[in-house]
Amino acid sequence: MPRTTESHDAVDVIRTKRDGGVLDEGQIDWVIDAYTRGVVADEQMAALAMAILLRGMERHEVARWTQAMIDSGERLDFSGLSRPTADKHSTGGVGDKVTLPLAPLVAACGVAVPQLSGRGLGHTGGTLDKLESIPGWRASLSTAQMLRQLEDVGAVICAAGSGLAPADKLLYALRDVTGTVESIPLIASSIMSKKIAEGTGCLVLDVKVGSGAFMKSLDDARELAATMVALGTDAGVRTVALLTDMSVPLGRTAGNALEVRESVEVLAGGGPDDVVELTLALAREMLAGAGRTEVDPADRLTDGSAMDTWRAMIEAQGGDPDAHLPVAREQHVVAASSDGVVTRLDALAVGVAAWRLGAGRARQGETVQAASGVELHARPGDRVHAGQPLLTLHTDTPERFDRALAALDQAYGIGRSAPDRRPLVIERLS
Amino acid sequence: MPRTTESHDAVDVIRTKRDGGVLDEGQIDWVIDAYTRGVVADEQMAALAMAILLRGMERHEVARWTQAMIDSGERLDFSGLSRPTADKHSTGGVGDKVTLPLAPLVAACGVAVPQLSGRGLGHTGGTLDKLESIPGWRASLSTAQMLRQLEDVGAVICAAGSGLAPADKLLYALRDVTGTVESIPLIASSIMSKKIAEGTGCLVLDVKVGSGAFMKSLDDARELAATMVALGTDAGVRTVALLTDMSVPLGRTAGNALEVRESVEVLAGGGPDDVVELTLALAREMLAGAGRTEVDPADRLTDGSAMDTWRAMIEAQGGDPDAHLPVAREQHVVAASSDGVVTRLDALAVGVAAWRLGAGRARQGETVQAASGVELHARPGDRVHAGQPLLTLHTDTPERFDRALAALDQAYGIGRSAPDRRPLVIERLS
Repeated sequence: MPRTTESHDAVDVIRTKRDGGVLDEGQIDWVIDAYTRGVVADEQMAALAMAILLRGMERHEVARWTQAMIDSGERLDFSGLSRPTADKHSTGGVGDKVTLPLAPLVAACGVAVPQLSGRGLGHTGGTLDKLESIPGWRASLSTAQMLRQLEDVGAVICAAGSGLAPADKLLYALRDVTGTVESIPLIASSIMSKKIAEGTGCLVLDVKVGSGAFMKSLDDARELAATMVALGTDAGVRTVALLTDMSVPLGRTAGNALEVRESVEVLAGGGPDDVVELTLALAREMLAGAGRTEVDPADRLTDGSAMDTWRAMIEAQGGDPDAHLPVAREQHVVAASSDGVVTRLDALAVGVAAWRLGAGRARQGETVQAASGVELHARPGDRVHAGQPLLTLHTDTPERFDRALAALDQAYGIGRSAPDRRPLVIERLS
Repeated sequence: MPRTTESHDAVDVIRTKRDGGVLDEGQIDWVIDAYTRGVVADEQMAALAMAILLRGMERHEVARWTQAMIDSGERLDFSGLSRPTADKHSTGGVGDKVTLPLAPLVAACGVAVPQLSGRGLGHTGGTLDKLESIPGWRASLSTAQMLRQLEDVGAVICAAGSGLAPADKLLYALRDVTGTVESIPLIASSIMSKKIAEGTGCLVLDVKVGSGAFMKSLDDARELAATMVALGTDAGVRTVALLTDMSVPLGRTAGNALEVRESVEVLAGGGPDDVVELTLALAREMLAGAGRTEVDPADRLTDGSAMDTWRAMIEAQGGDPDAHLPVAREQHVVAASSDGVVTRLDALAVGVAAWRLGAGRARQGETVQAASGVELHARPGDRVHAGQPLLTLHTDTPERFDRALAALDQAYGIGRSAPDRRPLVIERLS
């Protein structure tokens, strides 16, 4: 006989899932709302999250869970804009700077890109951390500022306001400290609650697979992608997912300012092939979702219009696109130990090394070094000679080199013949 | 790179168990100690408890977990007493007042009984709640007072001090609100950490099975009993378990003062057959464990010496054994609706009814009514006539009758032929 005026009891909800049952809509709505109000305690939600991780959720439970998180906060409305909107979300990878060239590129094609982003945690970098290496640039905008920039510039990359899916913000922080991150229903609902609340018209998901990704196996990545596509579609957002390879870092840099520099190369019509290929593939999906199939985004990279939009976007948020990006105080070069062909370059090892050099954070709220990271001079298939630089480590704090080098110990393989080329875009789900 | 000087990381420990692994000794020692120190947060321990509930623990993990909880606090030492010690623990049942006659009975046979007890939560009553219906009696004793009473009287029933297994106290309260109570490893380690820390020489476990018990199935009860017997034996405590039936309430009363009255009847040489049978069975196990097989405890019930010890025990803790016990302000009689034989009397229904009448509490810290409860006039096998009283409800707050009666709606079965008699003691494990 709990003496409560609440419509449900937290222990009953936990027990239902613990014993393998299906949560009904009333239970889901109540537990998310009560958790946001502080009536369901952190320890109760942690037990429920562990039960969800181990017991799973059915598709309709995930949909209701996502809706309840959306309903915990406000929703943005882009219907007043003069152009259609398209958004992209990546599940996170090493060297994944694609948002930086992609947002201005798609905007240059006539589609508004409202890219509400986060900071990095662990071995994958955060888009806001990368942009903050540009002197003057600021991540926080009011909703009115964001809408004005979307209309004027066409692209905005900024911090998600605290009003969108506040339940997800609480739950994400809780999962981080309770070993309950790795649940496909919880990951999918976390991502999609924010994206649906954001109000984009179409959404392209870049679901990474491989050592440097959150999803190590293709099956898991496919399940996550399918869950998210279904959630988006049910909520009226045109949603497509690409499964893309993250066994090797993307491009030739991992680290905040290093990745901005590489992104600017792409916008200037150059840059590494794989970054260009993925940027264009995602841009085409976003344009198709927004009904702009007549535009070829590759033209916007060569004609300078994507770069113009980039400059306008950075300036609109206080940044100086011509400022010198910070350079790390110390560098350390790792050279090839033998002649041969690079057979392997492990994304996770590079990501952990960049993190340990200061590019990432272990706990929310820690500061990151703008200039630190890893620069890759050779990639799988490249021929190298003994003594030739394979990579350069950058940091402001050289006492970090040892632990970074330890992470890279087995990162490279050098052999006799080139590895089979893996496709970058593995699969498409819609 | 968590910036911590701790030897382990809570998330690593949680993940190990979440993924079906075995916690090593270092992880277990650390997580229990760090939780007691507040370094591991409630939400982290809740996630770990859920992972343990769903993944289980191996026998050696449970042993280490128990030891770590013992090591979180102090241990009592009875080696200075002039007689051996024996203790009993029941997993809790409806109408289970056996501790009350048992402790003075075994003490009257020359074995000291240090019975550190708890309060009730939910549908099973607590021994301290029952004794507190005796005017003047107090549950709290210092360790010195307890040792003196054990030497002088031979029996003490009192509240466990806060120094014994403090980790268990924290964890028990956490499990209660996070849906993580029903885990055999966690139940076994909770019970045994307190009993081993208490320092008894031998321990008899009364593991209840049936609707009114925590363990509904014989298999679960057997697993719990076997786990606890192994834990006790490994820790040097002579440990025996009886599996006993709890499909029917024990005796003819459920409620605090009602059960004290019935216990006094047993000590006076009368009382219900089943209470006497179980009291003697447990007494014989305790005496055997303490090496006193030459005494027949049945003699001590008839010669008045158990009653003398009861009186001395109550007086030593400020109680008046001759005081009138409180009587409820209101009674309500439920009569048989037809002629026949009682075929069924559900223990859980009676327990819930007594709880709803005010005998139990829904939350720790709530007060209970001393006089409320259920009195049973007919038990399975008894012949009844339509209109004959089956049970009497007692409460000080008559607005509670409706919900108590609702719980009892299906409690009784009346049919043509007597049910098969179930053995009270189902199995013995040692």
